[in-house]
Amino acid sequence: MKLEKIIKNACEESISESRTGDTEDEINFIQNYLKSARKIIVPSKNAVKLNIINNVLKEFGLQEAEQLCINTSAADLNRLPALSKAIMALDQCECDLIISRGRLGVPGSGSMLVMIDKKGRILTAATSPSHVVHKKEVKDAVRGEIVHALERIGLKRIK
Amino acid sequence: MKLEKIIKNACEESISESRTGDTEDEINFIQNYLKSARKIIVPSKNAVKLNIINNVLKEFGLQEAEQLCINTSAADLNRLPALSKAIMALDQCECDLIISRGRLGVPGSGSMLVMIDKKGRILTAATSPSHVVHKKEVKDAVRGEIVHALERIGLKRIK
Ligand SMILES: Cc1c(O)nc(CC(=O)O)c(C)c1O
Ligand SMILES: Cc1c(O)nc(CC(=O)O)c(C)c1O
Repeated sequence: MKLEKIIKNACEESISESRTGDTEDEINFIQNYLKSARKIIVPSKNAVKLNIINNVLKEFGLQEAEQLCINTSAADLNRLPALSKAIMALDQCECDLIISRGRLGVPGSGSMLVMIDKKGRILTAATSPSHVVHKKEVKDAVRGEIVHALERIGLKRIK
Repeated sequence: MKLEKIIKNACEESISESRTGDTEDEINFIQNYLKSARKIIVPSKNAVKLNIINNVLKEFGLQEAEQLCINTSAADLNRLPALSKAIMALDQCECDLIISRGRLGVPGSGSMLVMIDKKGRILTAATSPSHVVHKKEVKDAVRGEIVHALERIGLKRIK
């Protein structure tokens, strides 16, 4: 089943008020979309971030990501900086999946890592504490976010 | 300092590419906004969800929330269901803070709990695994989300 059909069904359930949450089929679709994604993009000038993301993608048996070196500062002028950064990348390159990491909301709201598909739809995401609170190195924070983003939709480490 | 001024400053930093992430002042503002919020709204017909949210708000020394009984199914027709649900509530009642919980993105993408201020700006959020994956009771999932949403911006349990 295509995602369009899945969304159409879920919308009909919501309209008729019979929706009771995510289904196995929906989760499986997202898992398979990630597993079969050939071109994965990370919009960031930060090579450390790309490296850590690629290490985790490998651990989960997924394709490695490519870096898209664009200036994403404008995303931070927006209400949803991390998501806006992903959408900026979507609009500037062809790909199957975008993994973007940035601020969640207002200044001070900490970070979010989000994965969107080739139409810009949100497949998964994870938040972590503001760096002012966690005081971890950025690479450890990014690692925690991407692991959580993958595990929450049922993907597992294969090595 | 007002949030408008904080956002103006952060935008100027982003435009000049001198922004290096959240600051203590920004985090403190968000903490104080939550602590001084008088009217907190949870748009949900689910009393269990409201109860668990209120238990956690009490543990953190925050004001208890009121239930807004509106039909929020239409939020699930949207690309950002949990956030759309919060915005629906914002547009239908006067309040300082809205705490809403729903689906993160596409069907299968699991849940998100989000807190927005009286203008609809995102202050904090947290995701948890899809219920198909975690198989927890909804109250335990909601508890985990609200605790994480509060802790990631530096708030602590006082009891
Ligand atoms: C621009 C920007 C910002 O202002 N805040 C954050 C969250 C943090 O500092 O923890 C991030 C990830 C960010 O990219
Ligand atoms: C309508 C809806 C939905 O489709 N999926 C979820 C996530 C889940 O099942 O874990 C939620 C919270 C929800 O409110």
